[in-house]
Amino acid sequence: MLYVVGLGPGSKDNMSQEALGVFDKVDTVVGYITYMHLVEDLIQGKEMVTTGMRGEVERCEKAIELAAEGKNVAIISSGDAGIYGMAGLIFELLKSKDQKLDVKIIPGITASVAAAAALGAPLMNDFCHISLSDLMTPWEVIETRLEAAAKGDFVICLYNPRSKGRPHHLRKALDIMLKYKSEDTVVGIGKDVDRSKEIEKVTTIKDLDEEEINMTTVVIVGNKNSYVYDGHMVTPRGYTL
Amino acid sequence: MLYVVGLGPGSKDNMSQEALGVFDKVDTVVGYITYMHLVEDLIQGKEMVTTGMRGEVERCEKAIELAAEGKNVAIISSGDAGIYGMAGLIFELLKSKDQKLDVKIIPGITASVAAAAALGAPLMNDFCHISLSDLMTPWEVIETRLEAAAKGDFVICLYNPRSKGRPHHLRKALDIMLKYKSEDTVVGIGKDVDRSKEIEKVTTIKDLDEEEINMTTVVIVGNKNSYVYDGHMVTPRGYTL
Repeated sequence: MLYVVGLGPGSKDNMSQEALGVFDKVDTVVGYITYMHLVEDLIQGKEMVTTGMRGEVERCEKAIELAAEGKNVAIISSGDAGIYGMAGLIFELLKSKDQKLDVKIIPGITASVAAAAALGAPLMNDFCHISLSDLMTPWEVIETRLEAAAKGDFVICLYNPRSKGRPHHLRKALDIMLKYKSEDTVVGIGKDVDRSKEIEKVTTIKDLDEEEINMTTVVIVGNKNSYVYDGHMVTPRGYTL
Repeated sequence: MLYVVGLGPGSKDNMSQEALGVFDKVDTVVGYITYMHLVEDLIQGKEMVTTGMRGEVERCEKAIELAAEGKNVAIISSGDAGIYGMAGLIFELLKSKDQKLDVKIIPGITASVAAAAALGAPLMNDFCHISLSDLMTPWEVIETRLEAAAKGDFVICLYNPRSKGRPHHLRKALDIMLKYKSEDTVVGIGKDVDRSKEIEKVTTIKDLDEEEINMTTVVIVGNKNSYVYDGHMVTPRGYTL
């Protein structure tokens, strides 16, 4: 059996019971070294397979190979494994090899949901998730989605908003949104949410400081009704109070 | 302190460590009676305040009142409290009363993420959440969002897809999507995800049987690249394999 485990945003506090319990069932744990450290006390004595940051395909291939040999294997992912995580890649690889395997995905708390909880309640109305990384999605497709989401007045969660290799994607994305959203639209920033150095901040499109944003940041751009109350970012559901 | 706690989709297995631990810290637990049963062994001996299904405002007001008296209170919500849950209503009520209170939102696994894990990996590319309930959002706004999301080729998670009071919303929503999506687009259905009677099913827009859908169902409509492999619904991230 191959378990694909979402660890949540980084603290064991956010892991589900099911995710914590899975390590008792497996022989081998496969993961990026940083995430292995998060669960090191749970995986003592297990076979461990780690690779570097860009080694997702290698990690998933190794996990499939070991599970196909009959081992019980957990491959770990931060956040939820099914949201820009390892779960899809496992199935894509199985399909490309025309291989069948028992796979169980263990859901986790994704970065946007953790950031939203720390910020207030920004996701109380319809929302989108868009990754600004064009490594695997053409930038024109990302632009089309940004435009559609802004036009539909969705709350928009941006993953992979900015990196050294793509310093201008966030600015371009905000410029597209400004065709439909006011520059005073509330923006919530969650940086390393739920780690010791966690930072959350509520600002606006106009006042957002791009220099604060990197790949581990989630940016949540509100809809036209989002507001700040007592330091919390809130998108109303629409109750008449 | 007022804790707003997301219990996840219904089984204690999906609850986070933090959510489980919060009940040790509180005097009072406020919730809809069905959700109280999910945690009854954790809340023995606590003051319990329950109301019926439509009593969200009443429950939140009661929780605020008790916390303002100095009690430590947990108000519980299924899924994630910040996604169409109780978290936003707490802040909306505080704002309407111009009242300040220490509030901590404890994130949980929302229904779509649990359904996605059970179905395969349908949320591996950009996605939207849209509620089809027009109790608090005008239907025209919902239609605009459905149109925008379909045009942007998002994976679309539909919450509150169909009820006795709104039997035709799902059909109308699918018809709007069909302007941009093929009738062969893969659709995943998660019904009572992670409860004993849990049902998941992979179908297409064309073959979806509306009679199977009710208010506790999440419907996940794929993008143009979503496929079924070995019974799993998968939306590719875009790896070149």
